[in-house]
Amino acid sequence: MTILDRINSPEDVKKLTLSDMKSLAQDIRNGILTRVNTVGGHLGPDLGIVEATIALHYVFNSPVDKIVFDVSHQVYPHKMLTGRKDAFLHPEAHPEISGYSNPAESAHDHFVVGHTSTSVSLATGLAKARDLKNEKYNVIALIGDGSLTGGEAFEGLNNAAVLDSNFIVIVNDNDMSIAENQGAIDKHLKELRKTKGNAENNLFKAMGYEYFFVEDGNDLESLIDTFKKVKDVNHPVVVHIYTLKGKGYKPAEEDKEPYHWQLPGFLNENGSFDAPAETYDSITTEYILKKQQENPAVISITAATPGAMGYSREYRKKLGKSYTDVGIAEAHAVAYASGIAKNGGKPIFGVLSSFVQRTYDQLSQDLALNNSPATILVYWAGISGADMTHLQTFDIPLISNIPNIVYLAPTNKEEYLKMLDWSVEQNEHPVAIRVPAGNVVSGMADDTDYSVLNKYKITKKGETVAIIGLGSFFGLANETADEFKKHGINATVINPRFITGIDEELLNGLKSGHKLVITLEDGVLDGGFGEKIARFYGDSDMKVLNFGAKKEFTDRVPLDELYERYRLKKELIAQDAMNCLNLCRA
Amino acid sequence: MTILDRINSPEDVKKLTLSDMKSLAQDIRNGILTRVNTVGGHLGPDLGIVEATIALHYVFNSPVDKIVFDVSHQVYPHKMLTGRKDAFLHPEAHPEISGYSNPAESAHDHFVVGHTSTSVSLATGLAKARDLKNEKYNVIALIGDGSLTGGEAFEGLNNAAVLDSNFIVIVNDNDMSIAENQGAIDKHLKELRKTKGNAENNLFKAMGYEYFFVEDGNDLESLIDTFKKVKDVNHPVVVHIYTLKGKGYKPAEEDKEPYHWQLPGFLNENGSFDAPAETYDSITTEYILKKQQENPAVISITAATPGAMGYSREYRKKLGKSYTDVGIAEAHAVAYASGIAKNGGKPIFGVLSSFVQRTYDQLSQDLALNNSPATILVYWAGISGADMTHLQTFDIPLISNIPNIVYLAPTNKEEYLKMLDWSVEQNEHPVAIRVPAGNVVSGMADDTDYSVLNKYKITKKGETVAIIGLGSFFGLANETADEFKKHGINATVINPRFITGIDEELLNGLKSGHKLVITLEDGVLDGGFGEKIARFYGDSDMKVLNFGAKKEFTDRVPLDELYERYRLKKELIAQDAMNCLNLCRA
Repeated sequence: MTILDRINSPEDVKKLTLSDMKSLAQDIRNGILTRVNTVGGHLGPDLGIVEATIALHYVFNSPVDKIVFDVSHQVYPHKMLTGRKDAFLHPEAHPEISGYSNPAESAHDHFVVGHTSTSVSLATGLAKARDLKNEKYNVIALIGDGSLTGGEAFEGLNNAAVLDSNFIVIVNDNDMSIAENQGAIDKHLKELRKTKGNAENNLFKAMGYEYFFVEDGNDLESLIDTFKKVKDVNHPVVVHIYTLKGKGYKPAEEDKEPYHWQLPGFLNENGSFDAPAETYDSITTEYILKKQQENPAVISITAATPGAMGYSREYRKKLGKSYTDVGIAEAHAVAYASGIAKNGGKPIFGVLSSFVQRTYDQLSQDLALNNSPATILVYWAGISGADMTHLQTFDIPLISNIPNIVYLAPTNKEEYLKMLDWSVEQNEHPVAIRVPAGNVVSGMADDTDYSVLNKYKITKKGETVAIIGLGSFFGLANETADEFKKHGINATVINPRFITGIDEELLNGLKSGHKLVITLEDGVLDGGFGEKIARFYGDSDMKVLNFGAKKEFTDRVPLDELYERYRLKKELIAQDAMNCLNLCRA
Repeated sequence: MTILDRINSPEDVKKLTLSDMKSLAQDIRNGILTRVNTVGGHLGPDLGIVEATIALHYVFNSPVDKIVFDVSHQVYPHKMLTGRKDAFLHPEAHPEISGYSNPAESAHDHFVVGHTSTSVSLATGLAKARDLKNEKYNVIALIGDGSLTGGEAFEGLNNAAVLDSNFIVIVNDNDMSIAENQGAIDKHLKELRKTKGNAENNLFKAMGYEYFFVEDGNDLESLIDTFKKVKDVNHPVVVHIYTLKGKGYKPAEEDKEPYHWQLPGFLNENGSFDAPAETYDSITTEYILKKQQENPAVISITAATPGAMGYSREYRKKLGKSYTDVGIAEAHAVAYASGIAKNGGKPIFGVLSSFVQRTYDQLSQDLALNNSPATILVYWAGISGADMTHLQTFDIPLISNIPNIVYLAPTNKEEYLKMLDWSVEQNEHPVAIRVPAGNVVSGMADDTDYSVLNKYKITKKGETVAIIGLGSFFGLANETADEFKKHGINATVINPRFITGIDEELLNGLKSGHKLVITLEDGVLDGGFGEKIARFYGDSDMKVLNFGAKKEFTDRVPLDELYERYRLKKELIAQDAMNCLNLCRA
């Protein structure tokens, strides 16, 4: 029987000896490795925070004392200590929990969290409500050094500092974001570590926090000792702990970036898997490298997730000063890109759909209002079986309803490259491109110039039904056209290419010979592309059916189930269309 | 002839003696007062920055050296020194310029700016492009202490610090945001002032900036002296200047908040004007004050713009600890509200439509995903003749396409209060309310419970045409219904109440007896409310006409002209409808 077997709640942790807790740390690490090796997930952040989590539950009284985990990708040890260990130890129980904090799973989790830099603000809210209700307990925000660069974290720190009551920020400094840390904060934390917390100018002290430094953040005794000191304080404190990301698993200790997150089976396969020879990621990086050699003003920008887009360390090294990772700071990234573009540079900012959400105001004000000719590459966009915190379905309503931005939806490799090159070369518009997801598709791209905006292409001329297949759903449009043949209909197929506008001439042209227009989009319908087509045809006899995702937060729902739910299958689309056509005829 | 009369470009400033510059400062102040008294505008920020602007243009070489003004509401003196003085001195020339920086007006302006906290990031982009192109000049970001609390500013500072080249941040510290400053940064700046720049822990030094302090930021000599020191530096520096907001106009020096911005005629009328006895602002603050007395967990939150919503100093004082102004930190405000709501509090966050844009990701992740029952009051929403930087027309696409949020559109006082009270009392949903703008309208509100979502109300039963008038356009819907009588049509009128969903039952019911549904919304059509109605009816014979704003950035276009452009007048709507109906019949 391991120590972990005896732990069913934090109460059980409090009964342990120091030596027990050290064994427990090992048990937890085994649990992390077991789970990640079976279902994939975050590895390095969780291995590093094991001791701090044990110490927190030993010293504090969760869930009365409330711990808010930033990003919450380091929440695995916490889950194991709060009644959810089976989901780590026993493969059959793995699906019972998510990889993020979730109040639906446990009273020890206070928020659904997946995006970064939110913990301090959320915890400030918990503390303020506590104070308004005259309650007494500890509120703790646990935030990594990577998350600390996000603007919301700073806004939170600025406000938490004046709460005038108990508030504990634990800065989990593992000297890494997902990739290397960036910027002044990173340098400052290094200085604080070097001076054992005695740097000449202390950022946290400057902001009014009492400051504690734990040199070895994987040492249970010093953690417990320090946490006891700050327990029940009546003012805001920062506890800066220096932890080892990946601790206890050598490959992850030695090479932190690839082990931030791992795929199932990494223990057996040494973390490698067979990548396809060509991906949209590799196409993109090849293009940027080549372009940068032709034009030194080309600059590639990311916000802390280069790996997710295949921007390898080799790529970044090759680009040198022509690459900027701004860290977790999407808002800055967009304004920075706007500034570069306004001064004659050619910025290309790559960002995941889920994170482009973090920069609406900058897209609107800093970029679109200024018509800065920057290129935004939106990766991973589309319906997926992702966690509810990482859905990639909202970028079309977000981006396409902002004036001036040209949002393009390429349908294949050739078209993508031509759009990308046009975007980089032109000087008129802010351009966003929805990078295709999945396997690389080759196909037609008869245009190199997209400066006449909102021109759709009829790729297959038919009648009765026209199918507009946006971006990655262009393939589905063609498949559906084939399906219509079974119903005796030779459907028209259209590649709209532009998400941000209506081709009035082409759409008006469809009125002759067509009774029904179908739109297919790989994203949420509400506020999206198809609704604009429906609006256009509102005063005409043309029927319109829009297919896409429902407005909802889905949580790890298998993709096929979502396609079924949203009727995004050729047979279902054709069926709905035939129903509609039969009603029209009636 | 004044000194200002001789200044046509910064070149002319460089020729002046110190004594000339002092006279020039007075001339500029006269210009500011003249313009604001005629057309209204920002007063305090501009009066405070006069000397610093003269010193900047004396020392630096604009537009080769590039100055980026944060918010740019302090750009008047800069405009006067860069060829645009007539727009201050001569009433007939006032309309030639905007109150914000604008590259269309002058090569000395580099961005259209109106939202806060963006200057450092934008300037970082200018500097990076400069470095990529191997050019040499100074890049300067001028940012106020109020703007410094916004997360984007911090993200910018974090990244600019590692530029490894010339970068100058001027912190214009006037000890005020629009209202009082908030948080740790405010305290820290006070400490820096108290110690004449020698505080024990210096935030800017901690971030790697060389730091300069100018004790009297309205003293030309010390400003010039310090700017000369930092000119052409090869690393990032912060120049912290302490200026007097409102300098040179006694009432503005003595009472800073009301003189941040002033209406035309303030010089004659002592800054006061006849406010209506009852406004939606006063209704709201009365409600919150009363509610807070009943329930101490009720808390009112703003992000630096309490005055714009009529949250007077008296109101704030009365609420005491039950009021939080988070400063310019909308992202934090939403997460903070979510935290409060999750811990049993009743947060009510008031924010202008234009600024709610700054918090999309927090609305989605921190609030909606967590279903936190907070109330967001969206003020000033609707089509207006505002500057392009302050349009209030995008909140519907922004908020209404996020799952879980209930966005309500009250049409009158009674309905607004019932919706507000329902929102505060319920514990199920994040609720946003589009606070009506304009004069208070009394009317019907037969419901106190809005928990059955997306139920529209038919307020007038007719046939052939149904008009759905959302929120503040419900009045226009009724007027248009009257207009239809002239065409022999007794139109149905509907108050949809909910922006975030479709009342399928009611809309299906309209299919009998109606041929055309008209939607009216006071915001941009793209991604908005009407398109959802068009989508709903896409497969039916119902015709739909959507009326609202075009997707565009308009700049100080008179409201009536916009209504004409968007056909948002009862005659034009009826005309379009009759055209559509005649076509249907054909």
